[in-house]
Amino acid sequence: MEEMNMTEEKKRTTIVLFSGDYDKAMAAYIIANGAAAYDHEVTIFHTFWGLNALRKDELVPVKKGFLEQMFGKMMPRGADKMGLSKMNFAGMGPKMIKHVIKKHNAMTLPELIDMAKEQDVKLVACTMTMDLLGLQQEELVHGLDYAGVAAYLGDAEKGNVNLFI
Amino acid sequence: MEEMNMTEEKKRTTIVLFSGDYDKAMAAYIIANGAAAYDHEVTIFHTFWGLNALRKDELVPVKKGFLEQMFGKMMPRGADKMGLSKMNFAGMGPKMIKHVIKKHNAMTLPELIDMAKEQDVKLVACTMTMDLLGLQQEELVHGLDYAGVAAYLGDAEKGNVNLFI
Amino acid sequence: MEEMNMTEEKKRTTIVLFSGDYDKAMAAYIIANGAAAYDHEVTIFHTFWGLNALRKDELVPVKKGFLEQMFGKMMPRGADKMGLSKMNFAGMGPKMIKHVIKKHNAMTLPELIDMAKEQDVKLVACTMTMDLLGLQQEELVHGLDYAGVAAYLGDAEKGNVNLFI
Repeated sequence: MEEMNMTEEKKRTTIVLFSGDYDKAMAAYIIANGAAAYDHEVTIFHTFWGLNALRKDELVPVKKGFLEQMFGKMMPRGADKMGLSKMNFAGMGPKMIKHVIKKHNAMTLPELIDMAKEQDVKLVACTMTMDLLGLQQEELVHGLDYAGVAAYLGDAEKGNVNLFI
Repeated sequence: MEEMNMTEEKKRTTIVLFSGDYDKAMAAYIIANGAAAYDHEVTIFHTFWGLNALRKDELVPVKKGFLEQMFGKMMPRGADKMGLSKMNFAGMGPKMIKHVIKKHNAMTLPELIDMAKEQDVKLVACTMTMDLLGLQQEELVHGLDYAGVAAYLGDAEKGNVNLFI
Repeated sequence: MEEMNMTEEKKRTTIVLFSGDYDKAMAAYIIANGAAAYDHEVTIFHTFWGLNALRKDELVPVKKGFLEQMFGKMMPRGADKMGLSKMNFAGMGPKMIKHVIKKHNAMTLPELIDMAKEQDVKLVACTMTMDLLGLQQEELVHGLDYAGVAAYLGDAEKGNVNLFI
C-alpha cells in the first residue's frame, strides 16, 4: 500500500521548450538536469523554434518544398548555433556567454543536452511543428521521442512542475 | 463519496497569455484546445500584449486619452495581425507561417480561438491591463470574461498545468 | 489531524523570473503579490536577465574581469532602467507605460518589488548566473536569498502554481 502511494507520488517536471534562444534553452536544460538529479521524471517537449536545439549541425539532404527549404536555411542548425534572447549583438553575445561558461567551468548547451540524455530525460520532438516547418527525423539528433500535444498533456498533468520556456 | 472525489480531481489547465506574438498565441491555443479535448477545465487569462489576440479587427470608435489612443494604434488589431516572436521579417514571417498552415491543413490562430470558444475554454481579459492600455469592452470580441489576478489565481491554484506564455 | 492536513495543503506559487523586460517583471510581481495576498507561500527565483531587476541603481565599485565588466555595463542597473519586451522604441515605450501607470494609480515595478518584500515573498538570486555574469552580492539590493537550482526545485515541487517568465 505504501509502495503504491510512493509510486503515485513520483515527482515530475515537464517543460515545453518553445524558444529557439541559446540562453532560454540553457535555462530549460539546467532545470531539467537538476530535476532529474533530484529523482523527478522529466520531459522536455520541443515545439516551434525549440526544435532547433535538436537539429544536427551538418546539412542533411532531404526532399522538401520551397517554403520548407527556406525555413530550414533560416533557422539555426543545432544548439551551438542559436542566438541569445537579449544582447545577441549579431552573434557576439553568444560568444561572450560561451566564453564565460568555459571560464567558470560551467556547461555549454550541447553538453547540457548530452547530460540530459544520460540522465534519461525524455526529449520529445513535436510532430505537428515538424510537419509545419518541414523538419524530418533524419535532420534531428538521435534518441528522441516523436509525439504531439496529447502526449505532452499526458506527462504534464501528472506533475506539479510545468514550465513553458 | 466517489463522485465527490472525482469532482475534486477534475483536471485543470490555466494559461497566462502575456505575449502578443502569433506563434506563441498559437502554442497557447493548441495546448488549451488539446487540454479541453482531454476533459480539462481550461482558462486562458489574456494580459498585457496577449489582449491583442482578442481585439476586433475593425476600428471601434471609443473615447480615450492621447496615450491610450497611441497604444490602440500601435498594437495589432486582432489575432490575424500579430507578428512572430522569431523571423518576423517585417511581416513576411507570418505570411510564410500562414501559408504552411493552409498547406498542411492546420488551423490558423483565429480558427484556434473559435475552436476554444466551442470547447468552452474560459477566455478571460485582464481588467487591469485594459485599464492601463485604455482598451474597452466594445473593442474586444464577444464571449469573454473580465477579471483580475485574484480570479486567475482562483483557477490556477486548483490545477497542475499552469503555463505563462 | 486536520491541522496537519491544512499545513500540508498550504498553497504555493513559485516563479522563475528569467526575463529582463520591465513588462514581464511587472507581470511576475503582480502575480506574486496577488498570491501572497491570498495566503500562498511565494518565491521568485531571479535567473539570467531577471537578476537585473535586483541590481542597485548606483555604480558599485567591485573588482571584476573584462567580460564581467562588459556585462555589468551593458545590462540595465535596476528595475527602473529595464526595457519593454514589445514596443520598446528605444526607451519611449517604458516612459509611456510608466506614464499610464501613474495616471491610473497603478504601481511601478520598484513599488511592486517593495510590496513583495513587505509581504514576505522570498526573493532569490540565482548564484550560478551571478557567477557567470560576474554579479556580486554588493551590487544587488538587500533582503535577498542566494541559492541555486536545487533550492528552486525544493520550492517548486511543493506547489501547483509554477511559472517561467
